[in-house]
Formats: sequence, structure tokens, C-alpha cells
Amino acid sequence: MAQDNDNGHNSSNTSSLGSTANNGADVLVDTLLANGVDVCFANPGTSEMHFVAALDRKPQMRCILGLFEGVVTGAADGYARMADKPACTLLHTGPGLANALANMHNARRANTPMVNIVGDHASYHLHHDAPLTSDIESLARPMSRWVGRARHANEVARQAAEAIHQSTTLGGGVSTLILPADAAWSETSTSPVHAPAPEALELDASALRASVRALRDRGDGKTLLMLSGRALREDALLIAQAIAERTGAHLIAQQSNARAQRGRGRVSIERVPYNVDAAVKLLAPYQRAILIGAKAPVAFFAYPGKPGSMLPADCEITTLCPPGGDPLEALEQLAEAVGAARRPESLLALPSMAAADKLGWSSATPINALTFAQAMAELIPDNAIVCDESVSSGRDFFRYTMQAAPHDYLQITGGAIGNGIPLATGAAVACPDRKVVLMQADGSGMYTLQGLWTQAREQLDVLNIIIANRSYAILRGEFKSVGAGEPGRNASRMLDLDNPAIDWLAIARGCGMEAVRVSHIAALGDAVRAALGRKGPFLIEAVL
Amino acid sequence: MAQDNDNGHNSSNTSSLGSTANNGADVLVDTLLANGVDVCFANPGTSEMHFVAALDRKPQMRCILGLFEGVVTGAADGYARMADKPACTLLHTGPGLANALANMHNARRANTPMVNIVGDHASYHLHHDAPLTSDIESLARPMSRWVGRARHANEVARQAAEAIHQSTTLGGGVSTLILPADAAWSETSTSPVHAPAPEALELDASALRASVRALRDRGDGKTLLMLSGRALREDALLIAQAIAERTGAHLIAQQSNARAQRGRGRVSIERVPYNVDAAVKLLAPYQRAILIGAKAPVAFFAYPGKPGSMLPADCEITTLCPPGGDPLEALEQLAEAVGAARRPESLLALPSMAAADKLGWSSATPINALTFAQAMAELIPDNAIVCDESVSSGRDFFRYTMQAAPHDYLQITGGAIGNGIPLATGAAVACPDRKVVLMQADGSGMYTLQGLWTQAREQLDVLNIIIANRSYAILRGEFKSVGAGEPGRNASRMLDLDNPAIDWLAIARGCGMEAVRVSHIAALGDAVRAALGRKGPFLIEAVL
Repeated sequence: MAQDNDNGHNSSNTSSLGSTANNGADVLVDTLLANGVDVCFANPGTSEMHFVAALDRKPQMRCILGLFEGVVTGAADGYARMADKPACTLLHTGPGLANALANMHNARRANTPMVNIVGDHASYHLHHDAPLTSDIESLARPMSRWVGRARHANEVARQAAEAIHQSTTLGGGVSTLILPADAAWSETSTSPVHAPAPEALELDASALRASVRALRDRGDGKTLLMLSGRALREDALLIAQAIAERTGAHLIAQQSNARAQRGRGRVSIERVPYNVDAAVKLLAPYQRAILIGAKAPVAFFAYPGKPGSMLPADCEITTLCPPGGDPLEALEQLAEAVGAARRPESLLALPSMAAADKLGWSSATPINALTFAQAMAELIPDNAIVCDESVSSGRDFFRYTMQAAPHDYLQITGGAIGNGIPLATGAAVACPDRKVVLMQADGSGMYTLQGLWTQAREQLDVLNIIIANRSYAILRGEFKSVGAGEPGRNASRMLDLDNPAIDWLAIARGCGMEAVRVSHIAALGDAVRAALGRKGPFLIEAVL
Repeated sequence: MAQDNDNGHNSSNTSSLGSTANNGADVLVDTLLANGVDVCFANPGTSEMHFVAALDRKPQMRCILGLFEGVVTGAADGYARMADKPACTLLHTGPGLANALANMHNARRANTPMVNIVGDHASYHLHHDAPLTSDIESLARPMSRWVGRARHANEVARQAAEAIHQSTTLGGGVSTLILPADAAWSETSTSPVHAPAPEALELDASALRASVRALRDRGDGKTLLMLSGRALREDALLIAQAIAERTGAHLIAQQSNARAQRGRGRVSIERVPYNVDAAVKLLAPYQRAILIGAKAPVAFFAYPGKPGSMLPADCEITTLCPPGGDPLEALEQLAEAVGAARRPESLLALPSMAAADKLGWSSATPINALTFAQAMAELIPDNAIVCDESVSSGRDFFRYTMQAAPHDYLQITGGAIGNGIPLATGAAVACPDRKVVLMQADGSGMYTLQGLWTQAREQLDVLNIIIANRSYAILRGEFKSVGAGEPGRNASRMLDLDNPAIDWLAIARGCGMEAVRVSHIAALGDAVRAALGRKGPFLIEAVL
């Protein structure tokens, strides 16, 4: 899936198995390549120099520099969501990993396959407790499914294959392989290792029977199919919709999802709202919920006096397909069991959601959450990849873009802000022939703005739309939601970003990217259309 | 030490002991204030809204927003190094803490007192595994001396006092207190708690006797006093120099130090070089080393075939004062034991180091590591705070500025790059009447550039000098040092930052700060002098 460009990369994907590697770093790169991992997002340091040197000898590996590690792992997340295979990352000791953790957290919640290589001091140097020494395992574990350490060059290939396997199996996850410098630079005669094929949890026959019971002869509209992960791809959604038509069940997607295929000609489906009251109200009628790649919906945060679970207390929940299972297979078997058609008659899972008001394009129309969503419904180009970290400004987007041009929709999944710019960067690396449109809130955009530089360097086809409300607007809402009243002086100083206002045109220029600023809806439309007419990175600051 | 400014802060430091607190967040803020912690560097989220609301009721607490958590902890580090007391930080759940860890790592290595408050979900919400849930303790431990969790509002004051105590005692350290939202918002009738006074390890009498033995009647110049921490303040250095004069011992400072007081009228002392060969050569003559607040010098990284310990293998090492001890007391007792004078006759610990070549200011002179150091020797203003993350471009600085105007010198201590801009930010908050001069490499500056915005917002008196070599230049050297040869195409793509070049004028403008670019030494001098003539934040991009 990687781009054939001027970065020394070619699209040949031949396995290097059987080549004689010189050192641990060589056999590591060969093992990655042999398993189809041919993109490396990197921010190296001294302890990784032998790995970097090995990359020099393997032009098949595309190396992409991020000027901060949150860019590195966020880009690896976006890449894998679109490429359906892991990228590797290269990170420098404990602090480099620490900087990478927030976007590893998002990747973990997205079940993204990712292989992190974290360089460490040479094993015999650790007892000196040199300044960069830290407990890397303790840092890595909370955001990783699997953590390993290569204790010798001879272990590197096997450990790397295990890291790749753990990242791809059971629905995907984050692997972290710690590579001491001496394991990288020591000679080894080991060969690259093929990772075992990914596996999926087998469908639980009793869960399938329970699901069928919940659906069969229940035309009461009180059964919910809750979908996430692979279940939100176009093919899976068609089956889910056919089941819904056959059984009278309703479909809904999880609040945050790694990737959803949507737009005109695809099944339209609503998400569980972020707002607790709205979610509880929407889900109140349901007596039965069947989970397919999704988790039972819970409140993003606890609020005094409000429930943590969004489904009614007496709702009967059946997990047909846990995150480590195969949602497509689960839907196919469920469809067969309930006698659903192969294709649905209608694509409108919730008819009331499908109609979007047309926007009157005017210089008198301000940009706000509503007009922005309406505008995007008309502007999204065919087959785009839409990355969404619009936070409070994007609440209306999903609802208004049901009938937009077909697109892939990638969200922040773990609530660790600073995901958007890197995510768009990685998605563009995975899919060089598709336009990536990023909807980015300004407050969270500041976290990982260094990703703009990577977009500029790699000339990635990303349109970054910064939605500048010059505030942590979501927190102004949350301040009230938790019952804290109205923000005063100290609180406002922590919620507002308007003094000084961030100049995103200058930020973009600083990172080598052209940009324009717009402050009404007609100008937004002009700017987006102009940007879509050319390839390469661009930034629009949309001032609310 | 905090500034009386327009930020709702007043310099009154009255204890709030005895006030009736409403909830856990209130009693937490009151406990902080009662113990003199009156600056809060913050980047809050929903789970911290009650803490934010409590800050609204306490205008004595100065709240300073950072637009990324690495800015928050780096600023708290710089603040505490200059204020000699901790600031608190406010961080949002596991991912917010993760973003803060790299500069907590530097603070840990600097023995900086720091009190981190990390908000978490309400305790009863954790079992839902909501998107932001993670193992905060596992993340915090590697970079913290003490980690605690308040399990109820009634525990908050006691836990906060313990966090403050742990941060200030035994030479200083990083405390991390996890504050679940319900512990913050629940009512409590507990009162604020005073932290016990900081303690220091008692001087070890046998270590003192061993030190005296190593020094007495040994005029052979083969004994080294190795200093760090509090031993590098002006008063302590005078005693150390008097001991050196009396005994013929030599003084040297650790390679990285939290804070050193130096310049004209103060004891001039060299540091252990970063380069392994240079360090081994410098230390080769020494048969005895006495550690006072310092650690025995080790290589920053392991290099194939090179030693990890910098002192000769047969060097006799005596730890007179470990990091948890009192270096000033150790020096005083040692001086008395060896019969040293109260003040030294000369301030030149190593006479050969003291003479700096005068710079010919010319537009024909390029900016490089040498001319930059020579220029700074003449430009540093009296009583400045110099923060140094110049990395490869700053290697000559220390040697050439022995006779510069007296200044405090703050370094990156843990090798986690992205420390400089935040460090300068915090130092300026602590010392509003002093000019802060930051020497910042471009590659590491990109990590936490968001700190420029905080400087602009708070109108801090910081001159940021970005030394732009448009490369991870240190890694080009390290690539060779580890024996990896010459960088090829893939490696160069990970070591060079020149395509596109980062435009630091635009970055500064984006963050609300004025800036100029200079590319020869005369222009650098003009720009620095102009910037020193005014108050407030400014940035100079010095292109090498």
C-alpha cells in the first residue's frame, strides 16, 4: 500500500527470507519486510543508530520522519487503519516512548495493528543508570497488548515476528519491542522469521443462538445491533442492514470508531451520542442489544448523578462478536440464521437521519458546528478519507453527512487529543491516490502540529481544516456538565486560547505548508474547493 | 517567588489552614497553598473540572496554561529550579500524564521538587473501561519518586501533604498524586494539612573520614571533588574551591546539572565532557574521586568497544554526599576537617579554562558552535538565567563563558529533548525580575514549541535563541561514533530537517511572539542587544 515516491521506496514487496543478515538490526528490518511491514515512522536517537544504518541498506523500507513521537505513532495508527496492516515505528528509549504513548493509547482503543521498536541502552550499560535510563516496560504496558525485549541479537528475528503476530492477530493491537543497542549491533547468523497468520476468536455458538433468539419473531423494534470495528466497512454494513430489515432490529455504531465506510450508496447509520443525556434517551427503548465488534456503550466520563452505562439497566446484552473476533463472519452467520436477504432493500438504517438541510452559501453565514457540517456534506470529495478530531465543532458532522460522497471516516478513539494531524498524515501515506480531509479542532491540533512538517516533507495529499474557536470549548461545556457552575477568572484562563490567538497560517508556514484563513461559510467553500483542485498538503484556518 | 501580575494572582502567601473546605478539590488547593505551592501549570480536562472550579475560588493560586503537557511539566521544572520550591501541575488522566512524562524524566534527573496532580475518572466509573481509562500508576512510576491515589475526598489533604513532602525532602523529587473525579467533587470536612519539613540524609562520618584521608597530605593533584546539585551554588562552590586550594584537589561538575551559579566573580569550574574519549582523557589522571551531590560519571550512551565508566578502573570513589544529602553541609564539614580557609584565594578552579578569546563582531563571521559561545560570553546580561538545550551547538558554551556576567545556568538533565522552551518559561515565572536567555537547538525545540505561546500569554521576559542547523546534528555525530559509517539516503532522511526548513519566525508569530532571523555573528549581536533592551518574550532564529 505504500507510495512509490522519491523516498528510496519501491513498491516491490518481495520477502527477504534467506538473506544472510549481518547484525540484529539487519535481521529486524528483514523480518519486518518479510512480513509486509514496509513503512517506518521514526524519530530516532543514538541508541537506534544501528537500526537507522540497517534501514540504509534496505531501500524497500520507506522511512518517514516525525519531529515529535506523538506524530510518529499517530501516523502509524492512521496508516494501519487504511492499509489494514501495521507500520513500524522507531522510538528512542523511555522518554521517546513516553512522547508516543498518547497516540498509542488511541491506537489501542482502535485495535490498530502497530509495531513499535523502542531502542534502549546496550544491556550491559543499564546498570550505570545513565541519564536516559528508565523503566521502559512499565511505560509501555498500559498502551500495549504485547511488550517484549530482545536480550540478544539472536533473539531479534523471533521477537520481531512475535511482535508482528501480536499486532495483527485477534482484531489487531499495539506491540512494543524493546531493542537494546547491543542486540541491534551484535552479529547474528539467524534468519528473518515469518510471523504466524493472524487468528480470530471463533464464533461462540451459544452467543449466536442467543442473538437469534433476541431477533427472531421480535418485530417490536426493541433490539439493537451495535457495531464497531470491521463491522463498519461497506460489505459488513450491508449484511447488518439486511438483518435489520428482516428482523425489525435497529443498527447503531459505537461512539468512537477506528474506521467507518459511509456516504451515498452505503448504509447510513447513527452513532451513540457523546452527551450522556442524549445517549440515554436514544437507547432507552431497547430491551436487547447484540454487540458485534462493539463494546456496551458507557459514558465517556462520569458526571455526578448520571449513569455510567448508557443502555437501560434491564437491557439484555449479547456479545456476538468480541473485539478479537471476526465481525464479518459473525454478521454472515447471523444473517443466515435469521434468513436475511443477501442485500438490504434500503440503505437508510434510521430514515430520519438521512436528510441533510442544504446550505445557502453566503458571506453572511458564520462558520459554526451546524453550518460547518452542512458545508462538509456538500464539499467532501468522492472516495475521500475524512479524519475527525473536530471535538465540539464536529458534533453535527456525522448526522449531516449521511448522504455526502462516499468516504472513509476515521475518528479519535481513545480521547487522547492530538490524534488528528498525525492520523491524516499516516492515512495519506497508506493511500496516496486518495484525498485526505482533516477536520481538526485548534486546541487539540496544537498538541501534535509538528505533523504538518511531515506532510510538507512527504508532499502528502492532505487538506487540513483547523476549526478555530480559540477555546477548549468542550471543557466550557464539561465545566457546566459536572455541576461546577460558570467559569471565573482562573478557570477561564485555563479554558480560553484567545490571548494571544494562535495564528494557524503562520504555524503552517513555519512547517513549510501554504494556508489561508476564512471566517464565513462562502469563503470556506471557495477555499475547500480550491484546495481539492490540487494535490499536496494545504491548511485552512476556519475561524468560528 | 511568584509574580504579581494580571493573572488574578496576588503575592499574599497566607495559609488557608482552618478554613472549611467544601470538597476534595478545595481542600487540595488549600493544602497546596498552605505549604507555599502557589503556582499551577495546567492542561486540564473534564475529570479535572472540579479542581479548576476550586482554583476559581483561590485567586492566590497562579494558574498558567500550557497547550501541551510537556510544556506544563517542563515549566514546573524550570520554576522549581529557580524558586527552590515546587509548583504543582494539573494533568488529564493517563494520556495527559503520558505527554508530561519526558519532562518529568528530566525533572527526576534534576532532583526537582514537583507535585503533579493527575485527574482520573471517578473511582466507580473505572470498571467501565471508558475510552480514556488506562493504568496511570504504571505510567507514573518510572518518572516519579512517589505515586499516590486519593481514594476519597477525606484522603485528599493528607495525600497532598505527603506528595508535597516527598517532592521537597531528601534533595527533591517528583511526586504524582492521582485524583479521581469523585474524590475531587465529594464533600469533606477535613482541613488542609501541613507537610512535614524536608529532611536530608545525615552526613556519613565514615565517608567524611574517607574523604579526609583522600585529601590530606596528598598534594599530588590526583584527587577530584565531583560536584552537582546544591554544591554548584555560589556559596558552596566557594567552600569547594577553598578545599581544593588547601589540598591540591581538583574540582569538576557533573556533565548535566539542574542549576549552576557561574560567571565573573564566581568559582569557575569545568564539566565532565559529553564525548566519551574526551571524558576518559580528562579523568585519566585521577586516583581518588569524592562525590558531593554528584554521581560517578558514566557514558551517556554505550558505544561499541568504549567504557561505560569514565573514571579510571582503579579510581577510589567516596560518596561524601549522595543526592539525598546536604551538599552545603558536607562541604562545610569537609572544609573544617581539612583546615581549609573560609574563602578561596582564587576563583579559577582550572586556570586554563578561564580565558575566553574575544570575538571580532563581523558580518563576515558565520554563526557556529565556537562563535556562538564567544558571542554569548560577551552578551549574557548580568544576573541572567541561561537555559541550555543547545545540544551539539552548545558544546563550547560552558568553557567560553567562565568570565561572562554572573548568571544561573540550567541544563537539560535527563536527555529527554524538548526541555528548553518549557524550562525557560518556568524560570521566568519564578523570577520575573531577571532576564531569561534560552539557547535552544531547532530539532529539540520543535518538541515543545507550544511553550512559546505560554510565554506570549504570560508576557514572560524570555529571549529564545533558536540555533538552527536544520539537522539532528548530534545524531550525525553519533551515527559515526557507534561505528555505523556514513549516513546514506534512508538515514539522512531521518537526520536532516532541511526539507522543508522550519521557519521559526513563522512558528513564533503563530504563537503570538515577535521574532527575527540572523545568519552572521554581527547580526546576532545586534539582535540580542536589542532584545535585551526590552522586556517580554522574543525569539531570534540564528541560522548556522
